[in-house]
Amino acid sequence: MNHRIGIPDSEFVRGDIPMTKQEIRILTLAKAGIGSGDTVIDIGAGTGSLSIEAALLAKEGRVIAIEREPEGFDLIQVNAAKFKTANVEARLGAAPEALAGLPAADVILIGGSGGKLPEILGCADKLLKPGGRLIITAVTVETLSTALSNMRQRSAYSVEACCVQVTRIQQVGASNMFKALNPIYIIACNKEG
Amino acid sequence: MNHRIGIPDSEFVRGDIPMTKQEIRILTLAKAGIGSGDTVIDIGAGTGSLSIEAALLAKEGRVIAIEREPEGFDLIQVNAAKFKTANVEARLGAAPEALAGLPAADVILIGGSGGKLPEILGCADKLLKPGGRLIITAVTVETLSTALSNMRQRSAYSVEACCVQVTRIQQVGASNMFKALNPIYIIACNKEG
Amino acid sequence: MNHRIGIPDSEFVRGDIPMTKQEIRILTLAKAGIGSGDTVIDIGAGTGSLSIEAALLAKEGRVIAIEREPEGFDLIQVNAAKFKTANVEARLGAAPEALAGLPAADVILIGGSGGKLPEILGCADKLLKPGGRLIITAVTVETLSTALSNMRQRSAYSVEACCVQVTRIQQVGASNMFKALNPIYIIACNKEG
Amino acid sequence: MNHRIGIPDSEFVRGDIPMTKQEIRILTLAKAGIGSGDTVIDIGAGTGSLSIEAALLAKEGRVIAIEREPEGFDLIQVNAAKFKTANVEARLGAAPEALAGLPAADVILIGGSGGKLPEILGCADKLLKPGGRLIITAVTVETLSTALSNMRQRSAYSVEACCVQVTRIQQVGASNMFKALNPIYIIACNKEG
Repeated sequence: MNHRIGIPDSEFVRGDIPMTKQEIRILTLAKAGIGSGDTVIDIGAGTGSLSIEAALLAKEGRVIAIEREPEGFDLIQVNAAKFKTANVEARLGAAPEALAGLPAADVILIGGSGGKLPEILGCADKLLKPGGRLIITAVTVETLSTALSNMRQRSAYSVEACCVQVTRIQQVGASNMFKALNPIYIIACNKEG
Repeated sequence: MNHRIGIPDSEFVRGDIPMTKQEIRILTLAKAGIGSGDTVIDIGAGTGSLSIEAALLAKEGRVIAIEREPEGFDLIQVNAAKFKTANVEARLGAAPEALAGLPAADVILIGGSGGKLPEILGCADKLLKPGGRLIITAVTVETLSTALSNMRQRSAYSVEACCVQVTRIQQVGASNMFKALNPIYIIACNKEG
Repeated sequence: MNHRIGIPDSEFVRGDIPMTKQEIRILTLAKAGIGSGDTVIDIGAGTGSLSIEAALLAKEGRVIAIEREPEGFDLIQVNAAKFKTANVEARLGAAPEALAGLPAADVILIGGSGGKLPEILGCADKLLKPGGRLIITAVTVETLSTALSNMRQRSAYSVEACCVQVTRIQQVGASNMFKALNPIYIIACNKEG
Repeated sequence: MNHRIGIPDSEFVRGDIPMTKQEIRILTLAKAGIGSGDTVIDIGAGTGSLSIEAALLAKEGRVIAIEREPEGFDLIQVNAAKFKTANVEARLGAAPEALAGLPAADVILIGGSGGKLPEILGCADKLLKPGGRLIITAVTVETLSTALSNMRQRSAYSVEACCVQVTRIQQVGASNMFKALNPIYIIACNKEG
């Protein structure tokens, strides 16, 4: 493995855009099983932190990073330049519309859905190659519930899900304090080959 | 990345030996930053699940897996054969004694210490190369507390720690139930280069 | 407070019936705000542990404990006798049918719904007095999601929810091990007065 | 129970002083088993939120609230006035010194120790009546570790501990988001009668 996944959060440029934390990126990428030639679509890419780590894995492939907020769209490009991942293509737009015309993908990551998750899952299913992996991260009850019920109904997929709750231990003087991060649900869907 | 980290738990052969769960293996390996030529020492290797994933990353390197229980020692070899990781060397014995004569390491993983953590950390420090990574996983208050206080005192190391609590979502009929795994603390110590 | 809430789990008689753990009972009872003369309905009462603690609080009131499994129905009576709570009335049956003919309630607790949560919530709303409290505990994504979306739509209720994850610390030899209990969601709905 | 434990956090006056959250107050009070005539000592009382709920339970008893920060000392009195708990006595000072001359107690709560936990535990043991309860809440590895090892060595006490991690569900538009609170460890020590 030339690329060692798990870039520290502090190395990414970010404004006020929420960023997936290091531990969640690591687990998402591992469950995505990205190969060096893969085509990856990252929906709701935010600061691009996940897209960039994906691009370092898919180094002969490409990562299409879709983000509807102009601030995020700019940050993706700033971060892609910083990490020299020329294979990241940022696109400004909202899914599912922004998915039109995209190539078939080996991996689709969904980190944000703007309330249109069922439509996005329908489009993602069409774009995802046989044997591909669809990974949804959820921070709301609605995304968790919709993702599970929608994907469990699709017979072509095996679905497994977990909640990951990370508590950072922060040094404060001579003490080590427990500082919780928000829990994240990861729903991993493998499409049959 | 030829090897995609995150082998499902069910693929490892295990008896009654406790096994580090997939999500924790993934995070431990990512924080260890294992390179393809690295020498890795896995102390308290249990079933060998972590050793084997480490060996797949250090494919031109070697992994020395130390385990004091004969059942675990056997399972490490069974699993190494199953995953064809010829670069895993199982050793029956307890640390710190079993660390005598080992080569300098790029990465040391400590998953079990049999109540001798301070002595083991002292030996590990001597074995770890400059720039190396020492990763301790803790499932008891004592291991967490000792690892943090011992390693924070060593000026050559930067230490960061977190607790990871994974809740699996298990399908039971039409329902998706929350099933907690035990929390694990991961203490990652980077030695200055 | 004559009754001190928080009877240890081990004091209840239980068979193979799942039992709400002490910490969750305490939080459920506190959020229910049970007064000494209250009428309480406990739907899906299981072993009766929650009913009995509710009955100790509503000592001049009554607790109607509904359980569809005969084993649970028997255990409720065994536990009510053990704790001398004559104001617990066990009823064998499944909600919503078993709710027919029940008196108006100050507090309704829902610990199990057998897949009929929307119907049960509709009946519970009719039974609950103005100013009453409806507390739902959820161990599945579906119960959490349905309870939240159903109750948030009812303008007569203020709804607040949380997840509680308890990790017991268990002494094993000289060590204190972290042992996770499954997380539980508590949805507390206060009806306007 | 005239007093229903579980005052919402928002009803307490607070400045920049950290406040024990509602769910943790509830569990601490339940594990403390406060009777109506009890004498309670609250060490590191902060805003006084726990002292005030304790005083509502010990309504014929008294609660001595010790706080070393003047801002907290003032807030305790403001909150005691707001909730009309005349039986709360705020004392400005740091434990263990501030414990000198205090009466024997049925319940001692330790929410802050300023790095002097071993000394405070020694004094608390002397102040605590046979059959009394000592409850320590910990937000650092050091407090958790010290409290457990110190109290487990005292043969007069039975000790049980747990970690409580509450995640609030917060309505954001049409979504219910998971928002983690920091985990708290509760160490409950019952002194033999």
